[in-house]
Amino acid sequence: MSIRIGILGYGNLGRGVECAIKQNNDISLAAVFTRRDPSEVEILTEGVKVYSVNDIEAHKNEIDVMILCGGSATDLPEQTPEYVKYFNVIDSFDTHAKIPEHFMAVDAEAKANGHVGIISVGWDPGMFSLNRLYANAILTDGNDYTFWGRGVSQGHSDAVRRIDGVKDARQYTVPVEKALESVRNGENPELSTREKHMRECYVVAEEGADLKRIENEIKTMPNYFADYDTTVHFISEDELLANHAGIPHGGSVIRTGRTGWNGEHKHVIEYSLKLDSNPEFTSSVLIAYARAAYQMNKEGQTGCKTVFDVAPAYLCSQSGEELRKNLL
Amino acid sequence: MSIRIGILGYGNLGRGVECAIKQNNDISLAAVFTRRDPSEVEILTEGVKVYSVNDIEAHKNEIDVMILCGGSATDLPEQTPEYVKYFNVIDSFDTHAKIPEHFMAVDAEAKANGHVGIISVGWDPGMFSLNRLYANAILTDGNDYTFWGRGVSQGHSDAVRRIDGVKDARQYTVPVEKALESVRNGENPELSTREKHMRECYVVAEEGADLKRIENEIKTMPNYFADYDTTVHFISEDELLANHAGIPHGGSVIRTGRTGWNGEHKHVIEYSLKLDSNPEFTSSVLIAYARAAYQMNKEGQTGCKTVFDVAPAYLCSQSGEELRKNLL
Repeated sequence: MSIRIGILGYGNLGRGVECAIKQNNDISLAAVFTRRDPSEVEILTEGVKVYSVNDIEAHKNEIDVMILCGGSATDLPEQTPEYVKYFNVIDSFDTHAKIPEHFMAVDAEAKANGHVGIISVGWDPGMFSLNRLYANAILTDGNDYTFWGRGVSQGHSDAVRRIDGVKDARQYTVPVEKALESVRNGENPELSTREKHMRECYVVAEEGADLKRIENEIKTMPNYFADYDTTVHFISEDELLANHAGIPHGGSVIRTGRTGWNGEHKHVIEYSLKLDSNPEFTSSVLIAYARAAYQMNKEGQTGCKTVFDVAPAYLCSQSGEELRKNLL
Repeated sequence: MSIRIGILGYGNLGRGVECAIKQNNDISLAAVFTRRDPSEVEILTEGVKVYSVNDIEAHKNEIDVMILCGGSATDLPEQTPEYVKYFNVIDSFDTHAKIPEHFMAVDAEAKANGHVGIISVGWDPGMFSLNRLYANAILTDGNDYTFWGRGVSQGHSDAVRRIDGVKDARQYTVPVEKALESVRNGENPELSTREKHMRECYVVAEEGADLKRIENEIKTMPNYFADYDTTVHFISEDELLANHAGIPHGGSVIRTGRTGWNGEHKHVIEYSLKLDSNPEFTSSVLIAYARAAYQMNKEGQTGCKTVFDVAPAYLCSQSGEELRKNLL
């Protein structure tokens, strides 16, 4: 019998979860829930139904884990504490500063209703967080660095699109190679925002728009671009579609530290990702943690968890014996 | 109150553990146990006693976790099941093929005596295993690669030292850059032993020894060198001491895989280590898992565990709240 997954929200992430389910034999898609008119949502998996989110509670006995694919700004703060009443849930809540309060809200409802809710699953927060934790536990005396990219930032792309005269845009976050090298060499540099990342914008302008003004508005935009070295490339709509349609991302978590009676030895731990599809990779992490949520709940655990609370073996379908034999 | 650690075996690893304890405020060294005459073992930590291993049982109430720093060939298969009767224990058992039987032996005694024993802790097995597991859980459809080095292999150095006419030697395992690049590019190459690693030997020969014969004996030695491209450099004893006294190591665990409805997107996950001191880094991992063993046993858990069974949060002294706030 396979673990039955529900997907709430069928955008890039929901579709990614659907694809990831196809790659895991012990997991099946039970249903998709949407805020749109279900008849207008076409999914990839044959024979699986799309329902209105309003009917979600009626399906609580058909679903082992509900994966919440909404956004962190307004969806998840409401959805996760609400739906953990009826289901084990997984979300990818990524507003770092608000994780503590989100955790508390989910924990209360999860415990009151006997479910497991694993929040902030993905790669950052998620796999990057895990690697920060492991590296900090090992190298007590050290420095942490996180570099993002080269990859598409949806938030920054949206910010450029909101500028008057911009028809479409894509923004890439790019780590500064010199800074990366210095960190990897264990030089422990102190790096400003500008020294760590650059921003590259590919912009399709409306016909007749003032390109100088657009470029200036981008480069001086507070929070988003003003603190970075930003380059702006004006391209045609065709070129945007041909060369910038993907959603790649990635990055590196690096910790450098010292050991020895007098700190005489240096060490560098690096975890890095190169992803062709940010939402599909995130979805694959969500599915692994859905497996964990199901198992942990079956064993009687309840409450809110993060990747820090999940023993790695729960993520795999193999037995402990198989894992020790094949992966240890 | 700090977690009281005992060290059994005071070689490179035992001394590394002693250094790591100094870097962790919540952990203290209670005693060192040795098979040698204790009066001949001088340790770094002031005020801590060295005892004979024969008296170890008498100290069972003074020690929260015993770290076993013996070798995998003959020491640990006997020591870990024996001492888990009296203590929570950590070992770095690294004979991959014998892990299942070692696990069973330790598990039986750990459960019978109410202790936790965490085996095969370090970086391979250990952190590399963890990264193999996480990457496999996420990218179900993919390929695994492990590269070791550039670093000193004690086993290969010893093998060279046993050759007639060799006074001293150091062997470095070196990953083949071209193979690494191909893997990192997601080309999924099938690599032979020779294509993955090279072996570099620095040899101090006895006066008048036949260098040609030594070089030939090294390069044709079955299992150790015959399957590799090996280079042999004859150097003076002074040069060996000046340039090859350290025990650096490292390596990379890489998994490449595909996601998407038709496997249309590629991903690369890489975890890599650059270590100035192999035993000190391993020791730092041992200490983090000693903290976990102590906590897990305090919560009532018993039995044999590996890194796969330990939720990451147990490795840190900070509370769940602090970890979520600072590292998630």
